[in-house]
Amino acid sequence: MSKAGGDEGGGGSSETAQQTEEKTPGGKLLSKLSATTIGPGWTKVSCPCCDSQRVEPLVLVKLGEKVRPETKRWLIRVIGAPQKDGGAALLAHPGEDATGDIIMLSAPRCTLLRAAEELGLCKMYCSGDMEAFSYNDRDNFKDADNMEVFLTLAERQYIVKYELDGLRAQRDLRIPGLPDSCTLQHRDNIWQKLGSAGVIVDTFPLHNPPQLKELSEAWYSGNQLAQPLDSVNSYFGSPVAFYFSFLDFYTWSLLPPAILGLSITYFSGEAQKEMDQSVSGSPVQDVEADSGPVVGGHMIQAVFSMIWSTVVMELWKRRSSSLSYRWGTLHLAGRFAEPRPGFHGDIGINPVTGRMELLFPEWQRDLRMALVSVPVVGLFLGMVIVGMLCFYWGEAQVKQLHTDWDSLLSQTLLYMPSVLHIVYTNVLATVYRKVAKSLTEYENHREESSYEHHLTAKVLVFTFFNCFAVLFHIAFFKQDVPLLRKRLASLLIITQLVNQVTEVVIPFLVDRFISAPHRTESEDDPPEDKFRNQSTLPDFPGLFAEYIELLVQFGYLSLFSCVYPLTAVLLLINNLTEIRSDAYKICKLFRKPFTPPVANMGVWRIAFEVLSFASVVTNCWLLMLSPWLQELGQEGGLTTTNILMLAVLVEHLLILVKVVLAVLIPDEPDWIRKKIEHIEFTSMQALREQVNPPP
Amino acid sequence: MSKAGGDEGGGGSSETAQQTEEKTPGGKLLSKLSATTIGPGWTKVSCPCCDSQRVEPLVLVKLGEKVRPETKRWLIRVIGAPQKDGGAALLAHPGEDATGDIIMLSAPRCTLLRAAEELGLCKMYCSGDMEAFSYNDRDNFKDADNMEVFLTLAERQYIVKYELDGLRAQRDLRIPGLPDSCTLQHRDNIWQKLGSAGVIVDTFPLHNPPQLKELSEAWYSGNQLAQPLDSVNSYFGSPVAFYFSFLDFYTWSLLPPAILGLSITYFSGEAQKEMDQSVSGSPVQDVEADSGPVVGGHMIQAVFSMIWSTVVMELWKRRSSSLSYRWGTLHLAGRFAEPRPGFHGDIGINPVTGRMELLFPEWQRDLRMALVSVPVVGLFLGMVIVGMLCFYWGEAQVKQLHTDWDSLLSQTLLYMPSVLHIVYTNVLATVYRKVAKSLTEYENHREESSYEHHLTAKVLVFTFFNCFAVLFHIAFFKQDVPLLRKRLASLLIITQLVNQVTEVVIPFLVDRFISAPHRTESEDDPPEDKFRNQSTLPDFPGLFAEYIELLVQFGYLSLFSCVYPLTAVLLLINNLTEIRSDAYKICKLFRKPFTPPVANMGVWRIAFEVLSFASVVTNCWLLMLSPWLQELGQEGGLTTTNILMLAVLVEHLLILVKVVLAVLIPDEPDWIRKKIEHIEFTSMQALREQVNPPP
Repeated sequence: MSKAGGDEGGGGSSETAQQTEEKTPGGKLLSKLSATTIGPGWTKVSCPCCDSQRVEPLVLVKLGEKVRPETKRWLIRVIGAPQKDGGAALLAHPGEDATGDIIMLSAPRCTLLRAAEELGLCKMYCSGDMEAFSYNDRDNFKDADNMEVFLTLAERQYIVKYELDGLRAQRDLRIPGLPDSCTLQHRDNIWQKLGSAGVIVDTFPLHNPPQLKELSEAWYSGNQLAQPLDSVNSYFGSPVAFYFSFLDFYTWSLLPPAILGLSITYFSGEAQKEMDQSVSGSPVQDVEADSGPVVGGHMIQAVFSMIWSTVVMELWKRRSSSLSYRWGTLHLAGRFAEPRPGFHGDIGINPVTGRMELLFPEWQRDLRMALVSVPVVGLFLGMVIVGMLCFYWGEAQVKQLHTDWDSLLSQTLLYMPSVLHIVYTNVLATVYRKVAKSLTEYENHREESSYEHHLTAKVLVFTFFNCFAVLFHIAFFKQDVPLLRKRLASLLIITQLVNQVTEVVIPFLVDRFISAPHRTESEDDPPEDKFRNQSTLPDFPGLFAEYIELLVQFGYLSLFSCVYPLTAVLLLINNLTEIRSDAYKICKLFRKPFTPPVANMGVWRIAFEVLSFASVVTNCWLLMLSPWLQELGQEGGLTTTNILMLAVLVEHLLILVKVVLAVLIPDEPDWIRKKIEHIEFTSMQALREQVNPPP
Repeated sequence: MSKAGGDEGGGGSSETAQQTEEKTPGGKLLSKLSATTIGPGWTKVSCPCCDSQRVEPLVLVKLGEKVRPETKRWLIRVIGAPQKDGGAALLAHPGEDATGDIIMLSAPRCTLLRAAEELGLCKMYCSGDMEAFSYNDRDNFKDADNMEVFLTLAERQYIVKYELDGLRAQRDLRIPGLPDSCTLQHRDNIWQKLGSAGVIVDTFPLHNPPQLKELSEAWYSGNQLAQPLDSVNSYFGSPVAFYFSFLDFYTWSLLPPAILGLSITYFSGEAQKEMDQSVSGSPVQDVEADSGPVVGGHMIQAVFSMIWSTVVMELWKRRSSSLSYRWGTLHLAGRFAEPRPGFHGDIGINPVTGRMELLFPEWQRDLRMALVSVPVVGLFLGMVIVGMLCFYWGEAQVKQLHTDWDSLLSQTLLYMPSVLHIVYTNVLATVYRKVAKSLTEYENHREESSYEHHLTAKVLVFTFFNCFAVLFHIAFFKQDVPLLRKRLASLLIITQLVNQVTEVVIPFLVDRFISAPHRTESEDDPPEDKFRNQSTLPDFPGLFAEYIELLVQFGYLSLFSCVYPLTAVLLLINNLTEIRSDAYKICKLFRKPFTPPVANMGVWRIAFEVLSFASVVTNCWLLMLSPWLQELGQEGGLTTTNILMLAVLVEHLLILVKVVLAVLIPDEPDWIRKKIEHIEFTSMQALREQVNPPP
């Protein structure tokens, strides 16, 4: 215990501060990795074990233009001070010019290791198992002396942000070089305060060009089938790695339904006809009448896909937990998050932590949600429906007009309702996204995670409604299976074309003709400037759009699979290119994001599971509508009521089967369960020994 | 740290052992509570802070008849030795006669407090909040110096058992007075080994007569409406207290449906007719024809009860979590349970703990479940159905016979099928319970909890099937609503009568005429003999039968509520007596059970929730069958298909409403959520301070 405490050494914050602009003893510096190792100028650490000769810049802080040098010096002092003096115990570098507007940050070994324990990361123990990392037991973990191997780049960078976010003023103090209005009160969050005072404009992690190059070669440059998921995790962090793992897993799991769909289409000899119809848009009814066995095939496809969706999600849970074991995020510690920057309220004592903080009563938030958010979201959903009804009305009008007049003008007018509807839908979606943001802002959530969660839920519901309203309307109100098939096929093809263009072609063009010249020009710059250039890249927009794209795909496949068996084939082709284009995007077109370690893909798994259950209802309904079943029923002497009852019975049975399957397939493979229990056991044992030290 | 370690003092096990039969320094003993304080003879504790002058006997150990005095002396020595020497650090008393066959046990303060921390009990902090108890911080907890106030009787007794179960041999050793075949190997579980060697026959907690008297007066002797739940918790422990709390909560929540049912029955003027029909068993069809509004009332009743069941279960979860906060079981530590006594397997290294233990491969257990348990359970379920079909066939035969012959003999024969069916059902249930036990034994579960879980699941499925098969058959195959109503009414009335007799009358008679004389005779005995008498009481059979009775009740109410509105009224009356009879039973007729602290009622909550969702399906179906709706539909020009579709739509909507309600109503009240977060925060802070001690 006392040994651990002593590691931080005795150096006070004032001493460290005076050393900021001094050079570290020069000649010893070894520049093995030219890109990651930069010259002297780093603050010194007081802890002897962390006194490394090579410092890797991890995070860049961009200061406001008008920030005075004394403010920058004060900031560097705070960042470098030990934690017991209220500092972040990080390493700082003032950039090429000591008065310039950037600060580069890195973290010494002790800070990284302590944070790794606090976050609850698991690392490889000397026994070869993963164990929850313990600072006191650090010598028994593999590679615990080499931080660049022990912690991934994403983890090291996240830890820097974690320490910065945790900076709190230890007493009331004035920040040098700032007006008196910007004084820090006791326990104020320093980083947030500096952000709102305009001192800090941006904090972002730095790309590591050699690693990035290596990663991109293994990821999307060649013709590899497998993604380098471990490298993705270590470079971009677990949330990104989980997205790509899921994309990978989901794409391969499309193989069985794709093969089934292809063979059904082939064996019924309909392959050619299907393609013709979906392209030319000619009516299908006449073909339908004599295609009995096809619909029988569709029935197999539907039942298969209903069971398939549950099995896939259960298997993904197992895969996800073994990935999470592999990446050491199985045992993450729950944390008490800081309030998000936009949070406001009255000063009071937080009942959880007992600290003076801004508080906002829960009931008031609930009231705002119930009285403002829910009605507004409802209004927008209503507008989707109104738009759809207008579209149908307009289409009918235009058709009428066309039959009445039959001119070139009326022929052109035929496309008007569709075009108007698409424009309307897109405008509505854009407006809604803004409204959803301000609604969630207004709900005044305390934690960033809660804010994200509510925003995601709002956008999810709307996007879903927007994408599927027309299809549901055709399926349940018009009850027109051929129209549904036509619509679904064109949606799938159009969506894919649009995706390919926006996600592959445009990024490629941007990279070739806009970014590339810019990039070559910076080759000979000093290293600090190269880092600074990264701030010109746009922020990474998060994985929301990517996940929702997958979810909508999954919806097309599972909800309406029985009407168009080629869905899985089209999606499979789409996803194989999607993997590469997404990888290209995240590597080249954006700043590197901060990614907290996570144990799974969170709320999205639930969304996929809900969809998988909803699919039973739609598929049973669509099967019941199919003319083949109606015909078969009439031949067998079944009334419509009997068929309906049969459909309801089958629906209930399938839901039961899915629930039983979901319960029976364990969410973790057996060996992972044992590993988790082992990790829990050893960390409990360690705790117990701290309480009752052995004699 | 070192302070905590020092409290255990330096006394070795051998010294303690030699003091066993010596008297403790006599004159100091104060006998304040005559029943709980007994004379000298207790082993001494080496720890000075635990050297109390008053020892309360908590647990009685009954030894085998042939146990030699040296074995008993050795056992007392092991029980009294400090934990670091492989003992249980408990207090032992050899009973009146040092060579007799009982040992009484108690626990010193330090052992109790350390175990309270290990178990993760929450106790009242000096601030007035509940906090996870920490041994090092014990002085800041209220009443931490008076064990009889700080820990409940149930907790103290459970801790004694917990310490005994944790006894392990520290090296290979021979037990004195036993044949050489009974040697202990290193890390053998001593208590299990002694149990299988016949040294220990029984270990059970002792009743505390004054507390029991007080409790029973407050509980069932008077005319109180409210149960003394806190006293029940402190005397019998949280599992029992949770059962009675749920019974209480559920009974009061029957009030709304009971009032609704009564008013529906009253306003439709059917109250009298209903009673007549259900008693005389006359056919209902003729009444049904002109009772349109009644069935409308039934519809209100059905929709109400479907929503009601979800709301009740959600509110119970909230109540349950506040009870769990009140009783300090919110933050229980996960424990690695010892293998259960019957567990067998091959010696190997447990991957979780890294210890040498018996191991049994998971896949083999799964195989046994899939190939043996599932088919056998299925066979029994099939036998229920076969029995039911035979009953219907027999009834038809007998009726035919009666119409053909019409004699007194044939009249008597009319009752035969029912009687035979009841006998068959009961025999089957008894046989099944035994089969289920040996099946679960054969599955060879490692932990007691897993064994219990699988046994419960097996019995639950069968009981459910057995109770509801006939009702489901009538509802779904015969589609005969009046018959269902008749059957349900008679089931409710008969079940209640049987319950009253078996649970109130018989226990009362037993107590008056068999137990009471026995009890008075022991009034003047020495205290040791009074304790010994408790071993003549039967073991407490657990709460399984009680919970399943409630579950079946809940099933009658929620699954078929729309056919018989008086169900809730009958159940309410039944439960009001049930509370008292159950309380009487557990206080008077059984030994006191060991009860581990638990945070909720476990698997039973899930069973109630599953039932609540199944009720939507049955109720919608029954409503659709009701002649009133059929008539209404025909008047409104709706076909059967339309009515069916409407019913399916309503069913899906109601399920959606229930899911949304279950998600929207938080499982914990807001203040409890904050308290839980506070407890987690403070215990994380404490852990963090142990890792990074403040300067």
